[in-house]
Amino acid sequence: MVDYKSDVPGGPLLDGVFQALSDPTRRAMLQALAGQPRTVGELAAPFDISLAGASKHIQVLERAGLIHREVEGRVHTCHLDARPLHAGAEWISHYERFWNGKLDVLEALLRTADAGPGTDKPAPAPRKRKKT
Amino acid sequence: MVDYKSDVPGGPLLDGVFQALSDPTRRAMLQALAGQPRTVGELAAPFDISLAGASKHIQVLERAGLIHREVEGRVHTCHLDARPLHAGAEWISHYERFWNGKLDVLEALLRTADAGPGTDKPAPAPRKRKKT
Repeated sequence: MVDYKSDVPGGPLLDGVFQALSDPTRRAMLQALAGQPRTVGELAAPFDISLAGASKHIQVLERAGLIHREVEGRVHTCHLDARPLHAGAEWISHYERFWNGKLDVLEALLRTADAGPGTDKPAPAPRKRKKT
Repeated sequence: MVDYKSDVPGGPLLDGVFQALSDPTRRAMLQALAGQPRTVGELAAPFDISLAGASKHIQVLERAGLIHREVEGRVHTCHLDARPLHAGAEWISHYERFWNGKLDVLEALLRTADAGPGTDKPAPAPRKRKKT
């Protein structure tokens, strides 16, 4: 049995970030907050949802650490904190690099096959990719 | 009212990809499949979950387009398709660039403030970031 479970990078932070990003309303809210802080009412306004519904989305974003709320009397202003997104980007880019490497190998193999048996044509080197 | 809803990039593809990535078991399954194709049994083995539970996770990954299943008799072999991950990486990197830009502006403002009133010391240029 191959135990790959112990190699899993990230954890609860990634769970929360990806969960937060899995909804179009929450992604739109983050987009709005990238421009400037906004009140809960302003965040809810463009959507055909109740203030309570918007508030639930905002709570998911808060739990993921992507926004923090500033309370002044009855006005709740939401501020963006983009830092947790880096963990998500890193998780994806780590695996993208791995898979890109595999694609290079596959491409080289396919080119070798294209050259056909009995020819002396060497397979070209794998496509070069930008280092990131 | 600011209508930022119409500017939302991505859509159902992003919903599915981020939803798939929001669970540590599913992320571990993708990691295992990056190495080689695996049967449903092999994917389930490292986890303390039933085969039915593992199957549900695999279905979420399938719906997100991240794996496809090859059926030979009673053996179901899962193959990775990493392409949908690019959409997720692009969504995050788009906003990271935006926020990085804002941080540069903030940093410049803070340095101006540090220089203090009445001094002729100019604020240094914003930190240069790698273009991606």
